[in-house]
Amino acid sequence: MAHDDFSQERVTSSFAKQGLMKTLGATLEKVSAGRVEIAIRPTAAISQQHGFTHAGAVSAIADSAAGYAALTLAPIDTGVLTTEFKINFIAPAIGDRIVARGHVVKAGRTLTVAQSEVFAERAGEEKLIALLTASIMTVANRVGIND
Amino acid sequence: MAHDDFSQERVTSSFAKQGLMKTLGATLEKVSAGRVEIAIRPTAAISQQHGFTHAGAVSAIADSAAGYAALTLAPIDTGVLTTEFKINFIAPAIGDRIVARGHVVKAGRTLTVAQSEVFAERAGEEKLIALLTASIMTVANRVGIND
Amino acid sequence: MAHDDFSQERVTSSFAKQGLMKTLGATLEKVSAGRVEIAIRPTAAISQQHGFTHAGAVSAIADSAAGYAALTLAPIDTGVLTTEFKINFIAPAIGDRIVARGHVVKAGRTLTVAQSEVFAERAGEEKLIALLTASIMTVANRVGIND
Amino acid sequence: MAHDDFSQERVTSSFAKQGLMKTLGATLEKVSAGRVEIAIRPTAAISQQHGFTHAGAVSAIADSAAGYAALTLAPIDTGVLTTEFKINFIAPAIGDRIVARGHVVKAGRTLTVAQSEVFAERAGEEKLIALLTASIMTVANRVGIND
Repeated sequence: MAHDDFSQERVTSSFAKQGLMKTLGATLEKVSAGRVEIAIRPTAAISQQHGFTHAGAVSAIADSAAGYAALTLAPIDTGVLTTEFKINFIAPAIGDRIVARGHVVKAGRTLTVAQSEVFAERAGEEKLIALLTASIMTVANRVGIND
Repeated sequence: MAHDDFSQERVTSSFAKQGLMKTLGATLEKVSAGRVEIAIRPTAAISQQHGFTHAGAVSAIADSAAGYAALTLAPIDTGVLTTEFKINFIAPAIGDRIVARGHVVKAGRTLTVAQSEVFAERAGEEKLIALLTASIMTVANRVGIND
Repeated sequence: MAHDDFSQERVTSSFAKQGLMKTLGATLEKVSAGRVEIAIRPTAAISQQHGFTHAGAVSAIADSAAGYAALTLAPIDTGVLTTEFKINFIAPAIGDRIVARGHVVKAGRTLTVAQSEVFAERAGEEKLIALLTASIMTVANRVGIND
Repeated sequence: MAHDDFSQERVTSSFAKQGLMKTLGATLEKVSAGRVEIAIRPTAAISQQHGFTHAGAVSAIADSAAGYAALTLAPIDTGVLTTEFKINFIAPAIGDRIVARGHVVKAGRTLTVAQSEVFAERAGEEKLIALLTASIMTVANRVGIND
C-alpha cells in the first residue's frame, strides 16, 4: 500500500474517532504526506456573539489539520498530541465554507512543528482568515495509541 | 446597578448568543470585574481520538473566558474580538468537569491581554491542564456591537 | 521616488537607530514592499550556554525583520510596535550566518500580522531553524514617530 | 548541599556561559527551586528605534529566566533547550531597570512549561511590561550537556 493510501486510512479512521469534529460538522477533505485539509460550514451552532464562526471552532479544525498533517509523517506505532498552538485571527470567519490546510514545517523525532492556514470561501473566492502554528508531540510506546 | 451586576448581565446575554458554547455544552459559571469562568463536561461529543477532551474544545472555552473577562472591563458601547491566542496543553483533558478561568492581565484602550487557566476536576481535586494567553481587541463604533 | 526606494530609506534609517541591532552585529540585508531580511553572524558574544546562538538573539532579528516588513506597508506618518510574537525553534542556531526573512501576512489598519523564517547557512546550504509570527500595531498621531 | 545551593551554582555557572547575557549587560539576580530572576538596565545599546528597550532584549532575558527556572528542576545530568515561546508586550520597556521573573508552571519529563513576567522599575515602582510563556525541552544523554 502506498504511503499516501496508508496515511489516508490512518487519518480517516482517527478523524472518525474525534467526537468534536462530528459535533462541529467538520469534514476531512484531503490527506497526503505532510498535508491535511479539514472544512466546516458556518452555522449558528458554531457561532460567536456577533454571528461569525467562533474562534474556538476555527482553532479546532486548524489544530486537527496540523495534528493530522504531523500524523501522516509519524512512525506507524506512534500517536500524536498537540502540546501547544498559537493562532492569529486575521479576518472575520464569514463565508460559505471554512477550510483549514495543515502542513508540516519540520518533522522531528519528539516534536513536530506544523502550520495551518485557514481560509473562508465566499462567492467562489477564498480569503486567509487565520494562521496557526503548533508543536505536536510524537507519543510512542503507549498501548493502543497509534493515531 | 453595580458594575458587577452590569457585567454579569452583559456577559450572560452575550454568552447565550454564542452558538458554539451551547453546542459544546459549556456553561457560564462566574462573572466579576476582570474575571470569567466557563465549564464543560467531558463527553464523547467533544473528544479527540484518544478519548480526551479535544484541544479545540478546551481552547474554545479558554478563549471565551478570556474574551469575556476583557468584556467586563470594556466601555459599554464597545465589543470584543480575539485577535490571537496561544495555548499550552499541560496535562490530558480528562475528568468530571473542565473549567476555564479567565482574567485580565492588562486592559488597554485598543488591546487587552487576558489569560485563562484551565483545570480538570476529578474526584474533588483540580489539576491545571492548559494555559492560554490572548490579545483581545476592543471594537468601537460598530452599530449593534456592544459585546 | 519609487515605493521600494522610500521603504529602503525608511527602514535603513530606522534600523540604524536600533542600538540592539548594532550590539548584536546584525545587518540589514534586503528591503522591498512587505519583505525585510536581517542577518547575524554567530559569535560567542551572542551565544547561549551550549555554544549555539541564543534564542534571544534569533528572536531579536526575527522580530525586527517582521516589524520592518510591516513598516514598509505602513502609512508614511505612522510607526510600528510589536504587540506580541511567538517563535518556534526548529533546529539549533549553528552556522556561518543566520538570516531572518520577514514578510507581511496581512496588513491591517490597526494590526498587521507578519512572519519571519530564520535560516542558518552552513557550507553554502541553508536550513530553517526558527519560525516567528508577530502582531504589529500601527502607531499613528505620535509626534516624531514615523518608523 | 541543599537543592537551592546546587541550583544556584548550576544556574550561575551556566549563565556565565551565555555570551548574549553579558553582551546585553544582563545580571542574574535570584535563583530558587523553580524560580529565576534576570535584570537589565535600559541603555542605547539595547534600544529599538523609539528609544525603548528592544523587544528582542526583553525577550532574551525573559527566555533565559524561564529556561533557567526549568533548569532548577531538571535532573542533574540533563540540559534545557527552549523549543518555543510566546511573548505579549503590554507596556513600553522604559525605566531604570527591567527585571524578568521566570517560574515553572509545570515540570514534565520531556517538556516543561514556564512563564516569565517582565517588570520595568521606575522611581521605585514596578509595572508589568511583558508576559512570556515557553516550552522547554529536557535534553538527556548528550555528552557535556548538563545545563
